[in-house]
Amino acid sequence: MSVSIRRLDSRAADFAAQFEGVLDRGLAEDPAIAAAVAGIIADVRRRGDAALLDYTRRFDRYPVGDADALRVPRERLIEAERAIPAESRDALRVAAGRVRAYHERQRVDSWQYTDADGTLLGQQVTPLDRVGLYVPGGRAAYPSSVLMNAIPAKVAGVPELVMTVPAPAGELNEMVLAAAAIAGIDRVYTVGGAQAVAALAYGTATVPRVDKIVGPGNAYVAQAKRQVYGQVDIDMIAGPSEVVVLCDGRTDPEWVAMDLFSQAEHDEDAQAILISLDPDFTTRVGEAIERLLPGMERAPIIRAALERRGALVTARDLDEAVSLINRVAPEHLELSVENPLEIAPRVRHAGAIFLGRHTAEVVGDYCAGPNHVLPTSGTARFSSPLGVYDFQKRTSLIMCSPDTADRLGRTASVLARGEGLIAHARSAELRIKKS
Amino acid sequence: MSVSIRRLDSRAADFAAQFEGVLDRGLAEDPAIAAAVAGIIADVRRRGDAALLDYTRRFDRYPVGDADALRVPRERLIEAERAIPAESRDALRVAAGRVRAYHERQRVDSWQYTDADGTLLGQQVTPLDRVGLYVPGGRAAYPSSVLMNAIPAKVAGVPELVMTVPAPAGELNEMVLAAAAIAGIDRVYTVGGAQAVAALAYGTATVPRVDKIVGPGNAYVAQAKRQVYGQVDIDMIAGPSEVVVLCDGRTDPEWVAMDLFSQAEHDEDAQAILISLDPDFTTRVGEAIERLLPGMERAPIIRAALERRGALVTARDLDEAVSLINRVAPEHLELSVENPLEIAPRVRHAGAIFLGRHTAEVVGDYCAGPNHVLPTSGTARFSSPLGVYDFQKRTSLIMCSPDTADRLGRTASVLARGEGLIAHARSAELRIKKS
Repeated sequence: MSVSIRRLDSRAADFAAQFEGVLDRGLAEDPAIAAAVAGIIADVRRRGDAALLDYTRRFDRYPVGDADALRVPRERLIEAERAIPAESRDALRVAAGRVRAYHERQRVDSWQYTDADGTLLGQQVTPLDRVGLYVPGGRAAYPSSVLMNAIPAKVAGVPELVMTVPAPAGELNEMVLAAAAIAGIDRVYTVGGAQAVAALAYGTATVPRVDKIVGPGNAYVAQAKRQVYGQVDIDMIAGPSEVVVLCDGRTDPEWVAMDLFSQAEHDEDAQAILISLDPDFTTRVGEAIERLLPGMERAPIIRAALERRGALVTARDLDEAVSLINRVAPEHLELSVENPLEIAPRVRHAGAIFLGRHTAEVVGDYCAGPNHVLPTSGTARFSSPLGVYDFQKRTSLIMCSPDTADRLGRTASVLARGEGLIAHARSAELRIKKS
Repeated sequence: MSVSIRRLDSRAADFAAQFEGVLDRGLAEDPAIAAAVAGIIADVRRRGDAALLDYTRRFDRYPVGDADALRVPRERLIEAERAIPAESRDALRVAAGRVRAYHERQRVDSWQYTDADGTLLGQQVTPLDRVGLYVPGGRAAYPSSVLMNAIPAKVAGVPELVMTVPAPAGELNEMVLAAAAIAGIDRVYTVGGAQAVAALAYGTATVPRVDKIVGPGNAYVAQAKRQVYGQVDIDMIAGPSEVVVLCDGRTDPEWVAMDLFSQAEHDEDAQAILISLDPDFTTRVGEAIERLLPGMERAPIIRAALERRGALVTARDLDEAVSLINRVAPEHLELSVENPLEIAPRVRHAGAIFLGRHTAEVVGDYCAGPNHVLPTSGTARFSSPLGVYDFQKRTSLIMCSPDTADRLGRTASVLARGEGLIAHARSAELRIKKS
């Protein structure tokens, strides 16, 4: 059964509309989920641990005894790290080391200077006090996500990292626990869903209140993060995963097809787009897709994603291709071309760029070093990958000498009076020298 | 009539509860406003300019002819810059120059490196394409706010800055227009309220769609920003203004009283707190408040704010005072003490710190250099002042050589198979060398 993935040619009269159609993202929220989540949050705020226990028993079918039993002791994490296969442990450690090394370069330090006027100015940089990391449980257990969310916080200097992960029917994923050990998570609780987010945002007797919640989750978790935003900070609300592959037609079509599959296998809403300047190459990638798809473990999901939101696009020239990329502002961009370093600076919006034929997007998912938490759904127009900067904050520093208090005070006084704020003006004027 | 501002002593048995009571912020949203705003946004998305014209005529009582008339030409801004008093023009220019100089230090540059393995890694930093700046009209016209919001965006390199400002009954504030000229705003439209935010977020035939909306506004504007968040980025939703003054008891009590007034005069929900180690000093500040208040132009607002949310706190010792400050995480903190540079590093959460007796908070509002858009309501626990970093975004760069594609591919393959993502694994494996 052939895959009916869209094939678009930018020379077609209705290309612009067709391309917009591919990008269209129905992101409507489900009001039933919003209401259910609001109820859960209110209940956790009111009843604390008792509510956590109720929801955990009901939603996770985990007959937990008391709130103490929600805590996973540090020794359990270390035990998991020991118990997993050596090959997996080594891979997690290599990945963690590389992610740490890259993120070290993102750390921002405090600075201050005294300007020519004699005013000391600066910026004091501090880590957040405590961060919560949500980790999904059950089928979609991603140890890589533990590393990617925890390590930037640790590099930023966050003293306390609290992880919550549901234990469906009491079961925990050993790889996730091992990753928590390697990443240096400080506390782990087996709570999930909106109740975990509520506990992290407001605190209970057992789960401490945090200042920011990060990590992926299902629609309930995403909605809960949206509702507690303001009480605490959150990372982005991630949409479906996306890749755009720009290819000059000289990469093995099977490599390109497999790269498109690796996005598409996430879920049926994932988006995989090829942009090429060569219609023959587009055809060959189409053939590779047909050939390889039947052998894929997740063939039905891949097929659905490609048919729903995939596209093989032939563009007129490189300028047009780059402008299509900037229109998409993709989460992942592969520049599968001979001269990727010449093209990258022309990309204004993308979460991460994978340069050259040999750089598969998946090395970025796991172990290259940069973060795999990236802006989706076109938000790369204004957002960045998760990074150390998400766990640091800044405080402005200003110190006037008596002289600069006089000079700056005169300017402030004029502007304050112009805005009708007379106490402002007088506060400045009190520091002006009497002549 | 004496001012009944709370006087708290940390030695009191119920101090902790009393102090929490002072901080309590009822931040409930008004569902009627939320519904009205949702209607306006939907209408602007559907009808575009026609809706903008309708709302502008109705809410701003501005009988604007057609959508073209909503545009304020650049010449009009330059004319305003010429027309305002020389003293004001000079003050705006001094302020703009200082704000620009400080923010230049915040700019982040792209970087890349090749690691020991031979993988090129980096971070490409780009400005946002287009930013919208909301400026309130009418009574609360703040030219300083134009400078503080626009200049960081310009320093970041944002090519296009679009300002909207309502013109109640057709009137515009000359100082605001002059500030727009000085800050280098590219386009100005006389639209306000939720309709302006909707136009900036979705675009109309006249108002271009932007990538981020910043700037203060009333409850409708704040609600509209909240509702369009995700479609575009927004800055923070600002709460009432706050100051904490920590004083060692050796600053002129009238200076401290006036600094408290300068916050309190913003509105009745503004918060002004003095923390001192010396009960006698607290008393003297109380007396100064009584003495100075009757002479203040905004005495009723100041009184209401001080009585509602103000406090004069006597703390046991410096450690306790610092821990109270970190509990508040104030927007503004004055360290009105002899050795402010020793205390500042112990402050973990504050928007801006004003060091020493001579540094009035108001110099930060107007012209010291750092931004006056600061995290309120305790959000300094996880947020920073508005800065150049709010208008820059990052893209990760990864380039493998054939050799590193082999090595990283092996690690990625192990981890992908561990997560059950086989297309991920195969995409990596295709780049592993056949031996």
